[in-house]
This record gives sequence, C-alpha cells and structure tokens, in this order.
Amino acid sequence: MAELTKPQMPAYPIVDIHTHVYPESYLNLLRSRTTVPYIYDPPDGSRSRLIILSSDDSPSVPKEKRGRPVDSTYSDINLKLSFMRKHNITTSVISLANPWLDFVPAQDAAHWAEQINNDLERICAEQYAKATGGISTGNKLALNEYFFIYAFGALPLSAPSANIVANEISRLKTLKFLRGVIMGTSGLGKGLDDPALDPIWAALESTQTIMFLHPHYGLPNDAFGGVEATERYGHVLPLALGFPLETTIAVTRMYLAGVFDRFPKLSILLAHSGGTLPFLAGRIESCVAHERKFVENGGDVVGPQKSVWNVLKENIYLDAVIYGEVGLKAAVHGAGSVDRVLFGTDHPFFPPLDGNDGEWLSVTTNRKAIDGAFGAESDAAKAILGGNAVRILHLEN
Amino acid sequence: MAELTKPQMPAYPIVDIHTHVYPESYLNLLRSRTTVPYIYDPPDGSRSRLIILSSDDSPSVPKEKRGRPVDSTYSDINLKLSFMRKHNITTSVISLANPWLDFVPAQDAAHWAEQINNDLERICAEQYAKATGGISTGNKLALNEYFFIYAFGALPLSAPSANIVANEISRLKTLKFLRGVIMGTSGLGKGLDDPALDPIWAALESTQTIMFLHPHYGLPNDAFGGVEATERYGHVLPLALGFPLETTIAVTRMYLAGVFDRFPKLSILLAHSGGTLPFLAGRIESCVAHERKFVENGGDVVGPQKSVWNVLKENIYLDAVIYGEVGLKAAVHGAGSVDRVLFGTDHPFFPPLDGNDGEWLSVTTNRKAIDGAFGAESDAAKAILGGNAVRILHLEN
Repeated sequence: MAELTKPQMPAYPIVDIHTHVYPESYLNLLRSRTTVPYIYDPPDGSRSRLIILSSDDSPSVPKEKRGRPVDSTYSDINLKLSFMRKHNITTSVISLANPWLDFVPAQDAAHWAEQINNDLERICAEQYAKATGGISTGNKLALNEYFFIYAFGALPLSAPSANIVANEISRLKTLKFLRGVIMGTSGLGKGLDDPALDPIWAALESTQTIMFLHPHYGLPNDAFGGVEATERYGHVLPLALGFPLETTIAVTRMYLAGVFDRFPKLSILLAHSGGTLPFLAGRIESCVAHERKFVENGGDVVGPQKSVWNVLKENIYLDAVIYGEVGLKAAVHGAGSVDRVLFGTDHPFFPPLDGNDGEWLSVTTNRKAIDGAFGAESDAAKAILGGNAVRILHLEN
Repeated sequence: MAELTKPQMPAYPIVDIHTHVYPESYLNLLRSRTTVPYIYDPPDGSRSRLIILSSDDSPSVPKEKRGRPVDSTYSDINLKLSFMRKHNITTSVISLANPWLDFVPAQDAAHWAEQINNDLERICAEQYAKATGGISTGNKLALNEYFFIYAFGALPLSAPSANIVANEISRLKTLKFLRGVIMGTSGLGKGLDDPALDPIWAALESTQTIMFLHPHYGLPNDAFGGVEATERYGHVLPLALGFPLETTIAVTRMYLAGVFDRFPKLSILLAHSGGTLPFLAGRIESCVAHERKFVENGGDVVGPQKSVWNVLKENIYLDAVIYGEVGLKAAVHGAGSVDRVLFGTDHPFFPPLDGNDGEWLSVTTNRKAIDGAFGAESDAAKAILGGNAVRILHLEN
C-alpha cells in the first residue's frame, strides 16, 4: 500500500507497540470479582475504580479511592484511535493490559485466551477493512479510518498444561493481525526460570513469535517501606521502581536458568526499555563471573553460556517507554543498535491529570527523548518511532 | 606535595572511593554474634564464613557454606595497600563495610562509632606518616608507603537520639583524614524518608559532609523467587539486582519526602552508579507528574519541588562501579557531567575466583569501561579515576 497518502499524517510510520486494551468481555470478568484484580462500581454512581495492583488494595483506603478511575478509554477502540490521531501514531499493536489471564481458573483459561485473542483479531480486522475498503472504493474516510491496528495475543498460562499454551501460540499464527504474545513475569506461577515453561519457549521459538514481557506484580510492599509509603507516595514507588525491577528480575532469571542458551532464537520485547537491564547488564555479568556457584576452580563459568550483552543483541528488543534521553540512549547502547528499540506509549495509562485535552505528557516525554537523543526526523528517530516495528513485526503501513 | 615523584606510579591520582574495611575490633564483634550479621568459625578449622546478608543465612545450607569466606583481606591494611599497588591506585577512601553499626544495641552505638572512626583515623594517620615522613627524611621507602588513605566514617544510627548521630558528624570534622560518612538505607530503622532524620541531614549539610549511601538489605527474598532462587543462583540476584534497587528506592524515598527541597546543599555519593537512578530518573519524574497524590487539579505538583534531574546535578555524586560502558555513560549523562562520577573498586568484595594473583577482573572491568567510554588518559577518564575525588573530597596527593 505504498501508494496511500494519508492526509495530515507523517510521511513515515509511527507505530505504538506498547498500548493496552481491556475488551468489554474482560472488564465484565473484572467486575464479577472482589479480589485483586477487580473493578469496583461505587453504589453512589461515581466513577468505577480499577484495582489491579495488590499495593492498590489497602484496607485502610476506602474502596472508592483505591486503584485508579476506569473509563471507556480502557475498552473503546474509537478512543484509542482518537489518541493515535492526536499523537500522529499511524499504527498500534494493542495488547491486553495486565494482569492478562494470569488469575483465570485453570479450566477456563483456554476459553478466555481464545475469546480475548479472537476479540483482538476482530478489532484489527474491522479497522483494516475500514481503511483498505475505504481507500479502494475511493470513499471519503474519516481520518481515524486510515489507521492500522495489530495485536499481541494473550496466553492461557493458568491452563492445566503447558501444551495448551503452546497450542494457542500455534493458533495465533492463523490469525491475520496477531503479531506476538504478551506475558507477565509469573509464567506458570513460579517465575520465568521454571523448566516447565520449556514447551512454551519452544513453541514461541519454532513459530518465530515475539513475546512482549510486561510487569504487573512489582515487588513486595515491604521493599518500599510498607503501607505507609503507599499512602504517602501513591503509585510512584511500585510503578516507577517496582515495575522495572520486576521485569529485570524476570529476564535475569531466564538468563541465569539458561533459557537463552537452550532457545537461542527466542525473541522477547521488554517493556519500559528493559526495566533496568541495559543499565545493570554489566553488574549482572560481573556477579555471574564472581559467583562460586557458577565458576569452577579453573575459572570456567558453568552457569549461563551466553553473555548478557549478547542476549541483549540477539534475543531482546526494548521499547522506548523510558521518559528521558539518558535512559533511551542507554537502551540503544545496551541493545547494541538503534534497530532494536521501539516506540510505545503505555496508553491508556498515565493520562494527563491537568484536565487538558491536548497531547499527553507521558507520550510527548518519550517522543522528545527520541528526537532529543537522535534528532527529529533523523533516520534513527524514524527507526525507533516506527521503522523497526514495521520490519520486526511485519506490519503493513 | 606537588614535588613528590612516586616511582612506577601513574602521573595522575587514581582514587578508589568505594573500598571497604572491617577493622579487627569489628570482626570480633561479628564473631560474638550468632544471627545476621555474624562470622562463623567452623570447628574443623576451615576458613571462617562471613554471613552478612539475610539471604545468605538459609537454614537449608550448612553453616560452613553460608555467606562467603572471610580472610585477612577484610581487615589487614597491608593487603589493601598491596591491592592498591597492583591496580595503580594512589589513594583509597576506606569505609566500614556493611552492615556498619546498624545492628548495634542503642546504648553501645555511640561508643562503637567513636571506636571505629578513631580506628579509621589511626590507619590513615599511620599511612600518612610513613609516606610523608619517609619522603621528608629522604629515606628509601617501600612502594606501598607512597600511598595515601582517607576514610568515610560510620554513624551510630541505632543510638537513642538523632542528636547523638549529629554530634558524631561534628566530631568527624576534627579528625584529619575523615572525609565523609557512609550510611545504609535503613536510617533510624524506618528508611531515609523518615522525618526523624532531619537533624542528621541538617548536620551533614551544615558541616558540608558527604554521605556515601550504600546498600545492604537488598529486597525481600520473595522478590527473587524465594530460597530456591538463592540455591540455584547464589548471590547473583540479591547482589546484581537487589543492591542497586535498594539504593534506588532509598534515594527516591528521600526525594519524594522532599529531603532535597529542605536540605538543598546536602551532598550524597551513591554506590554502584546510583543503583539504577540514572536509568530510571525519567520514569520517576513521569510517575510523580502522573500521581494524583502529587498533582492538584490545576496540574501543579504538590510533591517534590525539585526535578530528579536537578537533584542528580546538584545533590548527588555517583561512583563508577557499574562494570560496563553502557551504565557508565548513562551515569555520566544522568549526573549531567563527567565531574560527578568517581572511580571505585568495592574491594575486598568480588575477588577473582580463578586463583590467579593478577589484577582483579572486578577492577579491570570498571577501569576498561572508563577508558573505553572516554579514552585512556583522556581528561574525562582522569577526572573519573581520581581528579574528581581529589577536588570533591579535598584530598592531598
């Protein structure tokens, strides 16, 4: 579709690979629950609250103030499209938001994964039909209708067997708009260094399916000073520090357990520029080289065979959701190339709190970091903003 | 002493600002204990074990295998000097190793701080006398005797009142070789955002005393997957990830509590290049700007007044103990200048495991990162290696 001209759109693709949805069916599931994760509808009719983090669910906070307000930005794809138009985003790769299907009872997991993934496929297909149908018939289109949507699928990780997960990974390859999967850090409940995950890594590797690794569980509240810290600082510590560290721990456990040695073609996309992996990669490497469990007397490492730096270059992509030039440059430096870092927004999270209807600070901060680090309209900036995603995820634009 | 020529020494100072000692008196204190932190002397006469991390003290591990072997490198200053000579380090700023005096009973704290700090002063003074005395008398000196040693003092944080701590901070200014203090992250037991610490911040600020903030407690074991992870990976997760995150959490809590707003001239030196602060500063800033507890309806921030980036530029120094160019460059970028990053080794921790008697991998990795990022012998490399420490800590060389 190189012949397309999109009015008022950038001349190059801008792809948001970190953007979440809660389909209506999933919101209803959350509404049916009373423990984390759940949605609370205050009886006085005030705005519903989404309570997804255990740190949000403090008994000392009234339920109508726990978590965050939830509105139709979480589920209405037209609001996603408006958000895209506002920020010149041409393509979104949507994913179910955390905690995905981690909490679903074992016997329901396969059903829910199929339902969510089919919902995602339908959303993408409808948007595709609008855009391409409108174009081919020469109809005048609303600007929204020029956009494309793809998706990362959800996995039935609570299912009774890893083979059920592997089967869904295979099925996703038959869905036209699915471009990978999103996963949390708990795996089958024991973390991502669990050997029982091997059939899943094998399925991802053999189908060349990218796994978007995303935090949810953070760290135990005690790490931040307990309930008192939550009350003083709200979500800041769990979100700003707990999330990135959770991602770093998860991928480091995969590394230490030799997952990247056993599955050398596994590709994962790390949320929030790898958590802290680019910054700490050297320290991880050094701690491995100085760990008596991993180093035999002769000095040979008997732990992970591949260096962390090579894993970053061969198995890992990083999003550019890092809110500053310092982190972004470190991410690109750690990834070994500007070609492995991809723009994202984390929509619908981090909306502006000032009531303004303009661009979102959380988006412009990341956009400015890219332009500031590499130059607006530079090849590097265009690669991060969209070119990399188009190439790596095989997107049309 | 600009007239000094030191045989076989570099033509510019190389200062190690992150190098620990356990004076003999402190080791005896640890030997008297049976709970963390403690030293275990196996009855069979095999090497003593130092068990300082709670994650080291797993009941499923025999005591003679817990923690790490402890030998005279921890206390013998001549071994420190040999280490310095081996790595061309001209000056060390030694500090008591973790967990410092955090665990000392309240009534003993002031005594222990005075004893340790006087021990440190004596070590420095003896070395100074050797070097300058030898030089002034024209005596032939052993190479070791050209080196200088300064120290960061320990604080009696478990004392019954913060004023006792403030008094020791004042007393340290009367000791010729003391150049600051070292502190862990627990403060008076409730973290570094505790308002009860204000007299201590005030004393540090008014005496222009630098505080070296160093991790010890890590994160709850559950964050890493519990005991099983410790058994599989040894110290890697707590040291590589727990330590840096602990530092980041501590300084972020100081920031969120407005410590740098109330004490704008407070200077702290962060271990391990700030933990993860340079990489996550943007995310912290963004989370504050999107936290309803901190943002009023009009969009004004009612939390911390100073930006994280300005705190990095005005209140924070970073060591260069980050084991790679990616992290080091991010540290310098985050610090806003090469003038705020200082070389260190973490001696006597991370010794080579291959039995070789040559340079330590943990030191050469950090040295190579500096030379690689900025060029060997470049002004920037010399600043990080020693020039910054000489200027900031007012060292003779």
